[in-house]
Amino acid sequence: MASTLILLRHGESEWNLANRFTGWVDVDLSEKGRGEAKRSGASLKEEGIKVDIAFTSVLKRAIRTLWIALDEMDQMWVPVVRAWQLNERHYGDLQGLNKSETAKKFGEDQVKIWRRSFDIPPPPLSLDNPMHPRFERRYAHLDPVVLPATESLKITLDRVMPFWANTVVPHLRVGQTVMIAAHGNSLRALVKHLNKISDQDIIELNIPTGLPRLYKLDDDLNVLEDRYLADEAAVKAAAAAVAAQGKA
Amino acid sequence: MASTLILLRHGESEWNLANRFTGWVDVDLSEKGRGEAKRSGASLKEEGIKVDIAFTSVLKRAIRTLWIALDEMDQMWVPVVRAWQLNERHYGDLQGLNKSETAKKFGEDQVKIWRRSFDIPPPPLSLDNPMHPRFERRYAHLDPVVLPATESLKITLDRVMPFWANTVVPHLRVGQTVMIAAHGNSLRALVKHLNKISDQDIIELNIPTGLPRLYKLDDDLNVLEDRYLADEAAVKAAAAAVAAQGKA
Repeated sequence: MASTLILLRHGESEWNLANRFTGWVDVDLSEKGRGEAKRSGASLKEEGIKVDIAFTSVLKRAIRTLWIALDEMDQMWVPVVRAWQLNERHYGDLQGLNKSETAKKFGEDQVKIWRRSFDIPPPPLSLDNPMHPRFERRYAHLDPVVLPATESLKITLDRVMPFWANTVVPHLRVGQTVMIAAHGNSLRALVKHLNKISDQDIIELNIPTGLPRLYKLDDDLNVLEDRYLADEAAVKAAAAAVAAQGKA
Repeated sequence: MASTLILLRHGESEWNLANRFTGWVDVDLSEKGRGEAKRSGASLKEEGIKVDIAFTSVLKRAIRTLWIALDEMDQMWVPVVRAWQLNERHYGDLQGLNKSETAKKFGEDQVKIWRRSFDIPPPPLSLDNPMHPRFERRYAHLDPVVLPATESLKITLDRVMPFWANTVVPHLRVGQTVMIAAHGNSLRALVKHLNKISDQDIIELNIPTGLPRLYKLDDDLNVLEDRYLADEAAVKAAAAAVAAQGKA
């Protein structure tokens, strides 16, 4: 049974604005980010999307993006599942640092490696760092072995994919319309899988913020259709803006 | 293990303002209602409430109340379960009618019977009435036999209580803090049960809007503590305003 999947990367956050590495820090959307979420909701409404179930992370920039979009679509009643597995990639000891300063300090190439290599994680948070997720109530019910102190894209993918396979896919298998509001790297893991992108090529793939991506999938979850709900110029402009963030 | 239960009745809706019977019609909060939700969230935050799981109805005035309160408490990440069983009492053929006009037409006593009797439902919606819940996507996954065309308080209680017993209580049994954002009559069902109020007395019990009610419960869910998170004057004023709604 053909199904529909909507991927939505949250719009600008207060730290995107300040150009700081965010990761698992629970930073809110900026006013611009709220506007992006609202426009996404309007595009989804115009497309006539009827969501059966929505998934998001436990970080408020993704949750608020979902709230604003569902509100705009008049589908606030849709079941929502929050899952840490959809969190942004954990940026380890870089979390909180300004991206330009990090680039100046370590060199633009090293920053690009940390941001865009497939399997090289940034330096980890120490276990007693108060920013470590083991000190946060929202992760207190989990076995601490799953809590990262840093992540590469590969590590991120390794925790996104079991959640996808076990929790999201069953809804697609029965033909439902699923919406996922999440982050650059957790969504990159899904796009890599769905579009069969190599470890090398995924590094350069930039997912624009605030533009819903619509997939139509067949019974075996092969991609029948894959497009952004926006005009091509808007898609290119958004991707270019994301790519520019790594520059000093 | 002692547990904490927060009951929160949504604040003023656009139809409270217009004095119309709302029931299952998905009317939004008024600006005043949003303010009430925000103040509730601030009271809960001040009390230091740490929610483990939240429940709400599938109606946006309750969902938005929960969203605003969780946002104010900086606990947007808390798992939220939406359940039709927590919906407002279905008001049958009265839904959409102005309360004062209904009182003039049928007499204040008849309206009071429909609003406040324990087991006399208003006239039902006909099956082909477009307002019947069977035409709404949010109820499409349910067996249509559970969908009401009208409800007395007793009928409301009969669908709230199994949800309470099977889905909410397990969280309280393990000592969690549970928050329920819902409606006058679905919350009245819970208060009747928790405070052991008779069928007769529950008729006159008015639950104020926008004031969080905090219960501390023992292992057998007996009430150890029961209070509103507001001063006594605010509680009395809110209850009086609710009681006045039935007058022509």
